[in-house]
Amino acid sequence: MTSPLRLGIAGLGTVGTGVVRIVQRHAALLAARAGREIAISAVSARSRQKDRGVRLGAYDWEDDPVVLARRDDVDVFVELVGGDAGPAKAAVEAALELGKPVVTANKALLALNGQALAETAEATGAPLRFEAAVAGGIPVVKTLTEGLAGNRIERVMGVMNGTCNYILTRMEDAALPYDDVFAEAEALGYLEADPTLDVGGIDAAHKLALLTSIAFGTRVDFPAISLEGIERVTIDDIRAAADMGYRIKLLGVARSSGRGVESRMSPCLVPVDSPLGQLEGATNMVVLEGDAVGRIVLRGAGAGEGPTASAVMSDVIEIARGQRLPTFGQPATSLAPARQAAEPTPAPYYLRMALQDKPGALAKIATCLGEAGISIDRMRQYGHADVTAPVLIVTHRAMRSALDRAIEDMDRTGVLAGAPVALRIEEL
Amino acid sequence: MTSPLRLGIAGLGTVGTGVVRIVQRHAALLAARAGREIAISAVSARSRQKDRGVRLGAYDWEDDPVVLARRDDVDVFVELVGGDAGPAKAAVEAALELGKPVVTANKALLALNGQALAETAEATGAPLRFEAAVAGGIPVVKTLTEGLAGNRIERVMGVMNGTCNYILTRMEDAALPYDDVFAEAEALGYLEADPTLDVGGIDAAHKLALLTSIAFGTRVDFPAISLEGIERVTIDDIRAAADMGYRIKLLGVARSSGRGVESRMSPCLVPVDSPLGQLEGATNMVVLEGDAVGRIVLRGAGAGEGPTASAVMSDVIEIARGQRLPTFGQPATSLAPARQAAEPTPAPYYLRMALQDKPGALAKIATCLGEAGISIDRMRQYGHADVTAPVLIVTHRAMRSALDRAIEDMDRTGVLAGAPVALRIEEL
Repeated sequence: MTSPLRLGIAGLGTVGTGVVRIVQRHAALLAARAGREIAISAVSARSRQKDRGVRLGAYDWEDDPVVLARRDDVDVFVELVGGDAGPAKAAVEAALELGKPVVTANKALLALNGQALAETAEATGAPLRFEAAVAGGIPVVKTLTEGLAGNRIERVMGVMNGTCNYILTRMEDAALPYDDVFAEAEALGYLEADPTLDVGGIDAAHKLALLTSIAFGTRVDFPAISLEGIERVTIDDIRAAADMGYRIKLLGVARSSGRGVESRMSPCLVPVDSPLGQLEGATNMVVLEGDAVGRIVLRGAGAGEGPTASAVMSDVIEIARGQRLPTFGQPATSLAPARQAAEPTPAPYYLRMALQDKPGALAKIATCLGEAGISIDRMRQYGHADVTAPVLIVTHRAMRSALDRAIEDMDRTGVLAGAPVALRIEEL
Repeated sequence: MTSPLRLGIAGLGTVGTGVVRIVQRHAALLAARAGREIAISAVSARSRQKDRGVRLGAYDWEDDPVVLARRDDVDVFVELVGGDAGPAKAAVEAALELGKPVVTANKALLALNGQALAETAEATGAPLRFEAAVAGGIPVVKTLTEGLAGNRIERVMGVMNGTCNYILTRMEDAALPYDDVFAEAEALGYLEADPTLDVGGIDAAHKLALLTSIAFGTRVDFPAISLEGIERVTIDDIRAAADMGYRIKLLGVARSSGRGVESRMSPCLVPVDSPLGQLEGATNMVVLEGDAVGRIVLRGAGAGEGPTASAVMSDVIEIARGQRLPTFGQPATSLAPARQAAEPTPAPYYLRMALQDKPGALAKIATCLGEAGISIDRMRQYGHADVTAPVLIVTHRAMRSALDRAIEDMDRTGVLAGAPVALRIEEL
């Protein structure tokens, strides 16, 4: 057995503590699997005093992650600080420049700086691995870059923010409005310090940017993601969708076709009896579609100490075993900028609107859709006590641009009471 | 870019043809991902004449897979012949003895000869990879040995024979007896030439033997698997289980606990609303439970040209990338014989029986359970037109040995009409 692989761990929050715990608890197991002992030389975190429930006395302490990354007795730098700039970025760069392997759980860092970091990594021959950055404990990076490496990937989609899925599930189960459930989630400590990262879809979009790159061999392009959060999803929409056989999920979808690459993070309807539709609570799910393999579904915990630390350790063991993979599955210099599709693939859409209760109102709406070339699959008008009539429409497949045109036309008819809600139905 | 990696493919059935198709269709993609071109030097199959729908003219032809394995222009030997002995085994041995990497989809070969082959592979430094041997396109070998390498694995379970799951699903959906659906499946070509391999659970048990080894770091031990097929599952049981909120699945379960390792392939009840319970048709599903990651669920096609060829190619690309992993995740010489658990972990059981319609019959049955220390969770007696009363019992957790004792006692009471059916309820 060769010499131990020595880690320097920056960041001792939930995930960092979990990594320390695994290294301490499973020394023999890890050594058998990795072919060498896994050790920790030094750690770094903001507070030295805090009781983290793990023994840290045997490790050196560095206040500065950059100094930690450069230590001679650190073979692998494990970055669990977070943030797309600042100390996390500086320390990762410092390690890579020295040709030192880096394992990170930092989706923001890679979504915004992935190309430059991957090029540095490859220039110096240092692996830069990030399994923990996407969907927590689910080994989706490994599955895409290795398990499905023989496939042309056609679509990657998933529920990759557990907090959003918790909120949407809870709204449905408890029949509570968004604001109430949001407040609950906040009280339970489920939300990031800046909750927009969760409910605005940004955190999930960081992950989607990374998956898009490894799926299609394109450069990470976070700004290209079309992004919409769950803030405007109402209990009315959740109920109406259920009534039509759907559930609303914050769904990330990356797709490659003749139109180019499209990458979207938005509330979508999925069939209630599909694996995505059945996903409840904070669990994550990623669906991968390849031309040979068909559809693979992966499900598991997307966050939390154990699951995320498990993903970090899989990268550490990969490095200990001497496996070397380019960061995004192929050399960074060979990654092409994604040719962005002008607009999303056509899809059925869900429309919910309130109509003035006047003769001919529904006919006018239907005419607007017809003139935009959109045909109606199903329509329901509900009984109502007030002066507006709730109407649901599920269209056949349509271009989003045509739908937007139809909605503008509807607005001009004067029969709408308020703006219609339009949500994509992602076909499975 | 280095020189091409040259394959020799033995066996041009569905999977072999699929591999040829991927190599031909995705040359550029594979080269970008693997870091070198993937080429085919020569192939081997029983019939040269057969039209397989792929161009084979550019490849040399060998009649003998052993000769193919030994060719100087074959860098990786791809064994898709099948069978646990004969030419498949001889050719794999020939390649490994020369230090040549082998990729195989042959679960029987490895389930019965895995230890010896892995030792040969490691002695000569040749990787022996078998992703395609378990659950087709689902990268479960990679997930267990790499993605979850930081975990102590606690339980692995899954539906790993699509034909059996198709039969059970179809029995329920069409309300047809086993024999009718079996005949249908045979007519559709879903069954192996020897159907016992499918419906007797042998094929799935081969896969389970391999998963058990990589999950727990133990030697492959096919004979240790407790094996029961689906031949005796009746439509009555499927209906009664559904009535209690369960579905019957041919479930492979490997578990490691203080009791030792248990490895079972048998019809089990699972909750109808669990991912396993919701699995329909020929799809496969594997559930992996680790101490850090919690529960990971993988779902996908378990057989067929594309999915299985996808798995073969993932191993080929792993080899092309220069990644080297011990066959069963850790050196073969370090694998310990599994300490077999004396009997399965306690579980709730489902019991279905017919009772003589006499006063006190049910009390006698309940007494037998009580005396064996088994308590009843739920019991239903159904209305009946004839002289026997159908009774369903779901027990609380019990040892199988205690249950068997209770059933023997019941038999002696004289109130049973026929032998009771007892099926394990696997807790999720």
